[in-house]
Amino acid sequence: MNFASDNTAGIAPQILDAIVRANAGFALGYGNDAATKAVEQRFCALFERDLAIFLVPIGTAANALALAHLSPPWGAVMCHAESHIATDEAGAPEFFGGGLKLIELAGEAGKLTPDILRLALARGRGAPHSVLPTVLSLTQATELGTVYTIEEVRALTAVAHERGLAVHMDGARFANALVRLGVGAAEMTWKAGVDVLCFGATKAGALGAEAVMFFDPARADGMPSRRKRGGHLLSKHRFLAAQFEAYFDGDLWLTLARRANAAASRLAKRLRAAGVPPVWPVEANEVFVTLSNASDARLKAAGATYYPWQTDSLPRKFRIEADHTLVRLVTSFATTNDEIDAFVRIAGS
Amino acid sequence: MNFASDNTAGIAPQILDAIVRANAGFALGYGNDAATKAVEQRFCALFERDLAIFLVPIGTAANALALAHLSPPWGAVMCHAESHIATDEAGAPEFFGGGLKLIELAGEAGKLTPDILRLALARGRGAPHSVLPTVLSLTQATELGTVYTIEEVRALTAVAHERGLAVHMDGARFANALVRLGVGAAEMTWKAGVDVLCFGATKAGALGAEAVMFFDPARADGMPSRRKRGGHLLSKHRFLAAQFEAYFDGDLWLTLARRANAAASRLAKRLRAAGVPPVWPVEANEVFVTLSNASDARLKAAGATYYPWQTDSLPRKFRIEADHTLVRLVTSFATTNDEIDAFVRIAGS
Amino acid sequence: MNFASDNTAGIAPQILDAIVRANAGFALGYGNDAATKAVEQRFCALFERDLAIFLVPIGTAANALALAHLSPPWGAVMCHAESHIATDEAGAPEFFGGGLKLIELAGEAGKLTPDILRLALARGRGAPHSVLPTVLSLTQATELGTVYTIEEVRALTAVAHERGLAVHMDGARFANALVRLGVGAAEMTWKAGVDVLCFGATKAGALGAEAVMFFDPARADGMPSRRKRGGHLLSKHRFLAAQFEAYFDGDLWLTLARRANAAASRLAKRLRAAGVPPVWPVEANEVFVTLSNASDARLKAAGATYYPWQTDSLPRKFRIEADHTLVRLVTSFATTNDEIDAFVRIAGS
Amino acid sequence: MNFASDNTAGIAPQILDAIVRANAGFALGYGNDAATKAVEQRFCALFERDLAIFLVPIGTAANALALAHLSPPWGAVMCHAESHIATDEAGAPEFFGGGLKLIELAGEAGKLTPDILRLALARGRGAPHSVLPTVLSLTQATELGTVYTIEEVRALTAVAHERGLAVHMDGARFANALVRLGVGAAEMTWKAGVDVLCFGATKAGALGAEAVMFFDPARADGMPSRRKRGGHLLSKHRFLAAQFEAYFDGDLWLTLARRANAAASRLAKRLRAAGVPPVWPVEANEVFVTLSNASDARLKAAGATYYPWQTDSLPRKFRIEADHTLVRLVTSFATTNDEIDAFVRIAGS
Repeated sequence: MNFASDNTAGIAPQILDAIVRANAGFALGYGNDAATKAVEQRFCALFERDLAIFLVPIGTAANALALAHLSPPWGAVMCHAESHIATDEAGAPEFFGGGLKLIELAGEAGKLTPDILRLALARGRGAPHSVLPTVLSLTQATELGTVYTIEEVRALTAVAHERGLAVHMDGARFANALVRLGVGAAEMTWKAGVDVLCFGATKAGALGAEAVMFFDPARADGMPSRRKRGGHLLSKHRFLAAQFEAYFDGDLWLTLARRANAAASRLAKRLRAAGVPPVWPVEANEVFVTLSNASDARLKAAGATYYPWQTDSLPRKFRIEADHTLVRLVTSFATTNDEIDAFVRIAGS
Repeated sequence: MNFASDNTAGIAPQILDAIVRANAGFALGYGNDAATKAVEQRFCALFERDLAIFLVPIGTAANALALAHLSPPWGAVMCHAESHIATDEAGAPEFFGGGLKLIELAGEAGKLTPDILRLALARGRGAPHSVLPTVLSLTQATELGTVYTIEEVRALTAVAHERGLAVHMDGARFANALVRLGVGAAEMTWKAGVDVLCFGATKAGALGAEAVMFFDPARADGMPSRRKRGGHLLSKHRFLAAQFEAYFDGDLWLTLARRANAAASRLAKRLRAAGVPPVWPVEANEVFVTLSNASDARLKAAGATYYPWQTDSLPRKFRIEADHTLVRLVTSFATTNDEIDAFVRIAGS
Repeated sequence: MNFASDNTAGIAPQILDAIVRANAGFALGYGNDAATKAVEQRFCALFERDLAIFLVPIGTAANALALAHLSPPWGAVMCHAESHIATDEAGAPEFFGGGLKLIELAGEAGKLTPDILRLALARGRGAPHSVLPTVLSLTQATELGTVYTIEEVRALTAVAHERGLAVHMDGARFANALVRLGVGAAEMTWKAGVDVLCFGATKAGALGAEAVMFFDPARADGMPSRRKRGGHLLSKHRFLAAQFEAYFDGDLWLTLARRANAAASRLAKRLRAAGVPPVWPVEANEVFVTLSNASDARLKAAGATYYPWQTDSLPRKFRIEADHTLVRLVTSFATTNDEIDAFVRIAGS
Repeated sequence: MNFASDNTAGIAPQILDAIVRANAGFALGYGNDAATKAVEQRFCALFERDLAIFLVPIGTAANALALAHLSPPWGAVMCHAESHIATDEAGAPEFFGGGLKLIELAGEAGKLTPDILRLALARGRGAPHSVLPTVLSLTQATELGTVYTIEEVRALTAVAHERGLAVHMDGARFANALVRLGVGAAEMTWKAGVDVLCFGATKAGALGAEAVMFFDPARADGMPSRRKRGGHLLSKHRFLAAQFEAYFDGDLWLTLARRANAAASRLAKRLRAAGVPPVWPVEANEVFVTLSNASDARLKAAGATYYPWQTDSLPRKFRIEADHTLVRLVTSFATTNDEIDAFVRIAGS
């Protein structure tokens, strides 16, 4: 019963096979190999335009490099208070950005709204006294397992662009959102106003493979140096390329995401039936529920893994009772129905 | 009618005279002069203990250098959301601190409370995912013209120290708070649990003179290098020393602060009588009131200077009406009764 | 004829197998898995003491994290002018170190000497005007394919420690040096005065696996946060652990290094016999020779890969003739005798 | 006998008078006052073009802010190995520049040449492995008291611009060079290819007043925020403006510089006559000589102040004898003939 994180699953077999295959022979390092060139083209095709792409092994790095590249050090990144960049990256964006600031905004169900953003942008004395809002960062799917609709993304990016902010999307769970919405990769990103995407494959089944993507390649000027000096240019780069090749082959990525989402839906449905309804709409591969201390103890005793969760986004009219804990349950491509059913059996008993 | 800021006043005459006198002859630069050594001793006497002291010309620098020295880059400074370090220093603490984070907390009347602090310290997943709270920063007097009592300071520093945080006090208006409380400098700082004080004289009548003070000198190890590489080591250092000498001579600093506070009290009292009551208790040299648009226009036309103010600390049961603006009025040692009376006459009419 | 870099070889089969095996089942992320704990113990056994160890996928990151952790931002790292940290990391140590400085010293054959170091340490006005030497960084094996003897390491670390500097060793080619000297890992590091080692496995046959090792664990305080905020904490951490496990199993790492060194020796010997003598002693897996433009063209035409090299370490009495180029030839565990012999045939013709 | 530094002199009387006069009445802070606007116009007139100007109290800050603004963090500043930015600013450019690198070049008499620069620019593997040369920094007058001719400046800036580097001039002793060359301020700067000038008045007679000047104002975009977050925006800004007004009034600045230069020339001439010839041409307000230990002791005993000096620029055919020390003697507007004559009497005896 592994619900601690999608990163507790291993590598999807097809991706592991691709790593093994990529090991044949010699290849120039640092991205100067044929496989890297090929996968870059593939990204362009998938996103229906020219891109500047930078592969890195770790998602925190992808976000930090992207945000630092979009903002001068005196800039501010407008983001949800519960976004990964705000809570779980130990200050990586601030470090890479030379001391830039995150302005952390509350919003229901892990999502920002145009009104929240507008209100925040109206604050401050302006330069040179205040930091200057320079980037809007959206997480898709959000940390709370919800998904922005295309219209919601568009409405937010419109406010950002009006005010001269660039738009960053943290897509650590990009595929989960995409298959939920049933749209194309371009539609959910640059066609909806996103300027830079951090496209994650690690949580979805890769060993460690993330892509920073600039939809306007001119904006990426200097990024090769930034990545290198951040220590994020893998020498045996073909193994990054291989992971993405396999990820895209035969739409594996969509298949894996559908599987993870379906597991979450099943988990949510059964938990609800067992009297443990999810706190937020289950739109990707995360389910948040409040467990009684007794349930929690039984589950732990049975070996289930998951984490308690802190939130300021609790839905109106929902409250965590005294002897209950809010917990996060994450499913992945590797989650089995047996795990789900066993979990629900114990949780609901 | 100069109420825009205490820094719109010039230099107190006694301090200007001291600068003129200090110009005689030659003196070694960079703090290696006799006047600097002497003023350091004076600080020690005033604060009743050995100190490591670093003089700089600018207050933002003092705060940024101090905070950077108290926290590793992955640390977080707990501060009021409306503190100067959070809103008016363009990210200086973040820059000097290598990307450290400010955790900005709401609190009434510009003040934090032990409960607010405790709640904030209970958040976060801990290292290595979250930044780590390392410093509590208090502003005395606060940005909203209120003053922490000694008991309030003690209660906050106790929570901080329990959790291993160092305590920084932004004393840009230190003297205003001190004369309000009627206590000694030691009592309001290290005896109440403050570890590092940024002691401001600029707003109080100096040309530009601030002191970063470590109550435990061992904590200042490396600070000379940090100040120098921040570009904050004045070469003709005797002129910084001279400002502080004059500031302390004959308790000038307390006299100037009392004058500024008295001006604020007079302004508040008369405004209240004129039907424009202050929003927060007037405990230092700042008065916040809501002006009707008509009053505002009349005052501006008459040449009054002051700034509108944004706040999230509005007292319960107080609200800003539609055609009103919240404004900040700052008095200084140089404010005259005539200015005050003229202002009230127009504001209340 | 692949001599461009040791990173153009793929993954050693045993290490790839270990990655595949590690894929079974679920494992907690971020190093909280059993395999990571086990491999940490293995490092301790190998180095004959308690260690604080941090695994990362990329060598530049390892060096930058280590140096930043050993020095305050106003410190200076004394290093060879041709070391990787000075020439090939795009300023990563300076970035991670908050603007620290590398003091780049000339020295024959890529090596520093106690006299060179002493002379450099005698420079400067001292704090607060000058940066302060805080770290000595040694590369073992050096960038020029030479190896410090144990006595040379000891003599250098003694000078460093006398002056209060910490000692960092860049061990990107650690194993190559170790098997050359025929000593134990402890003997070449902490027993000889090294404080922190960046232990590389990537160039030696891993996919991407490096370890930062603090011989005094107390010195690593805060390092988990530094690694995380640098974006260098791999979520699926078991795959880093697996690489090292296989690397150490049955002394694979020594076998691989011996193979790479033997290939370099063969290459050097045959080139010398063909009238193309190596510029520096061939003590690890790199051979530097000057090729005539004609040879260079023939080799390129035949598909050989290698890079030209710049140096200020040219041995006395050796000079590069007008129509010649200095080139670097790097061998690896995967270099074949056929490649070597083909290369020499063309180069010497 | 004060020859330790030009900053040991106090404030020129006319500048001090201006500070006193500027104290009348109230003025908006942070440069929003009339005096600041006026002095900005004056700079433009003096330099014969539109400028973006930023006044700061300290020279190290001026250089660091300027260099950080001209280069991305992965850039390198080409400079003389004995320049102030390289040796005496404790790493301020590296800190403000997010870890940028100084590439420190040897050159006779404190000066770079086009050949030295070209050679240095030919080094390196290029992006993303190497840092990228982005700025050429020239010091005028140099740290060794020499002055670049207009032709020398032009030749160097031409090489820089060909390669896409911006040109920074550290003009801490700008006036000393200007009166020596007898040219206009525009001629020695932008007309000769300088892009950004740090114009110093502190060493020349101000309390603390420096100006960062962008000859292409577009290049200064964001600089107000950078200055503020560096802690370098003086609140009582009128006192910076006042210093410059007085400095320019009646060409005081040129008068002061001529006086300092004349003192150095007299000192050099008399020392030479006394058998103690200057090591480098005396072209500004610094004289370097080697003193016998006996002379040194006599001078110290008589109360003379000056510093020993380290150099790698020693002229060919000049060497420092065993019982001698190289020392720097700096004159200022305040140096008297009596001081000079007394010094020479003792030094030459």
